[in-house]
Amino acid sequence: MRTIEWQDGKVVTIDQTKLPRKTVFLEMENCNEIAEAIQTMKIRGAPLLGAAAAFALALAAYHSKAKAKKELIAELENAARTIRKTRQLAVLVVEEAKKIADEDAAANRLIGMHGSKLISDGDVILTHCNAGALATVEYGTALGVIRASFEQGKKIKVIATETRPKLQGARLTVYELQRDKIPVTLITDNMAGYVMYKRMVNKVVVGADRIVKDAVINKIGTYTLAVLARMHGIPFYVAAPKSTFDLAHSSAEITIEERKPEEITRIGREQIAPEKAKVFNPAFDMTPLKYVSAIICEDGILYKEDLAKFKANP
Amino acid sequence: MRTIEWQDGKVVTIDQTKLPRKTVFLEMENCNEIAEAIQTMKIRGAPLLGAAAAFALALAAYHSKAKAKKELIAELENAARTIRKTRQLAVLVVEEAKKIADEDAAANRLIGMHGSKLISDGDVILTHCNAGALATVEYGTALGVIRASFEQGKKIKVIATETRPKLQGARLTVYELQRDKIPVTLITDNMAGYVMYKRMVNKVVVGADRIVKDAVINKIGTYTLAVLARMHGIPFYVAAPKSTFDLAHSSAEITIEERKPEEITRIGREQIAPEKAKVFNPAFDMTPLKYVSAIICEDGILYKEDLAKFKANP
Repeated sequence: MRTIEWQDGKVVTIDQTKLPRKTVFLEMENCNEIAEAIQTMKIRGAPLLGAAAAFALALAAYHSKAKAKKELIAELENAARTIRKTRQLAVLVVEEAKKIADEDAAANRLIGMHGSKLISDGDVILTHCNAGALATVEYGTALGVIRASFEQGKKIKVIATETRPKLQGARLTVYELQRDKIPVTLITDNMAGYVMYKRMVNKVVVGADRIVKDAVINKIGTYTLAVLARMHGIPFYVAAPKSTFDLAHSSAEITIEERKPEEITRIGREQIAPEKAKVFNPAFDMTPLKYVSAIICEDGILYKEDLAKFKANP
Repeated sequence: MRTIEWQDGKVVTIDQTKLPRKTVFLEMENCNEIAEAIQTMKIRGAPLLGAAAAFALALAAYHSKAKAKKELIAELENAARTIRKTRQLAVLVVEEAKKIADEDAAANRLIGMHGSKLISDGDVILTHCNAGALATVEYGTALGVIRASFEQGKKIKVIATETRPKLQGARLTVYELQRDKIPVTLITDNMAGYVMYKRMVNKVVVGADRIVKDAVINKIGTYTLAVLARMHGIPFYVAAPKSTFDLAHSSAEITIEERKPEEITRIGREQIAPEKAKVFNPAFDMTPLKYVSAIICEDGILYKEDLAKFKANP
């Protein structure tokens, strides 16, 4: 494993105070536990501290029960304060976190620039989930491609799928694009086929959580869109930084996280299915590369055959 | 047009008191307006009165703001009382309504019986929306096929799509099947592709609102499922009574109803998208017959070529 890793809502690291005697894994579920691990030197080394600080914020966000955006930001600021106080090395931590942030932002600008070459005036682009500024440090991956095209003056429109169960498309993508004055229309996920049938869409651009050697792992629903795009002769693009590439592994090795049934049976205060409904709730799905027209990363536009080369010489 | 027709939440009929002098169309939006039209003889004739009575109840149900099932039933009973009082011909009306109900129930039993021949022990059947007892007088069309197979002792399982935006799958299909102890798993619509990819499903059975000569018109999302089924080599069956057949028309002549944006942007008390989100909300979609493996009606199992014969000699 990596020195520090995200595992199902926990951050797992090696307790460096026990090394080389024993390999003890620390599971940290909140920001305070990470702060404690940094203070007691269980986690050390500037780059690792930077990553740990970033993970601490990730934990805070992931487990947050905040209903309003303001509330979430307050929680994150609290978490940041907790982490910032942990050690004299705080400056180093902050520098490292900033570097991570800068690299992410720069990667997204490049993804936007490269990806915009695939987008033409008049395009209507369907996107899924939120691969936007809210999911990244800024600008976004899939939405970065859309933003860059729009900034170049291309007249484009976006169709956003609501993305059940967590509704990131409805809640975040529509919000982001409206803020930027990019025309966006919201649909439910099951309308995707019909908008393609009606020729209301001519490109699909989505993000990726992980790209393995034969498939793209991304938010549940991505695979359905890829199949529909193929059947309608519509290009299907994946926009993702190289940090998501994991070309040593294949889809057969991947276990897809299943999340709690209440994500589907309840929406906020509303119970929308019988209490005891049995539910299947995979968080992600896998889209075989054969359905992917191209991958847009910070290096440029990669086609399936490039990916093999990329693996040999990244 | 037919003597009496449903049009976007209204019932439209010809005012028979004005005939043959003038053709005046009456638009009725609630049960009282229908009662008034019957009392003033604008609507007349036993079979037509039967249909009007049924439409009166349909209007009450369609425009109901009832939150609980009990409340809706009370509203329907009220509507039934209103209609029952309208004329001395009340007995006739009730008889006609009963006949309609009996015919529907009998058709569904036949659909179930014929359709069950397509279902094998061990099948996992995906269904969409609610084509069940709650959508019909009893037994259901798509769910009739599932019920009949289950009653024959076949070990089957069902996967129900939640069916956004109105969630009939989550709310009604899961409820109906649980009540009958038929194993059912709920998924969001965008998981359909993934469950097929994982070979968790081997048949799809849906209902139909209308079958024209080249397409099946049914709840939005049906087309997406048909395309996915085709790509995965999974049979896609439509179960529907002959009363839905409209083989004189083709899909090009059909206008799909678009419904209000709030169906998508709100779920009960929860606002799930920005207030001013632009929304596309078609209630139905069209599935070309080339994606339909067979249509199950009360006469038996029809394949595409049978449908042409059926048109010539119904």
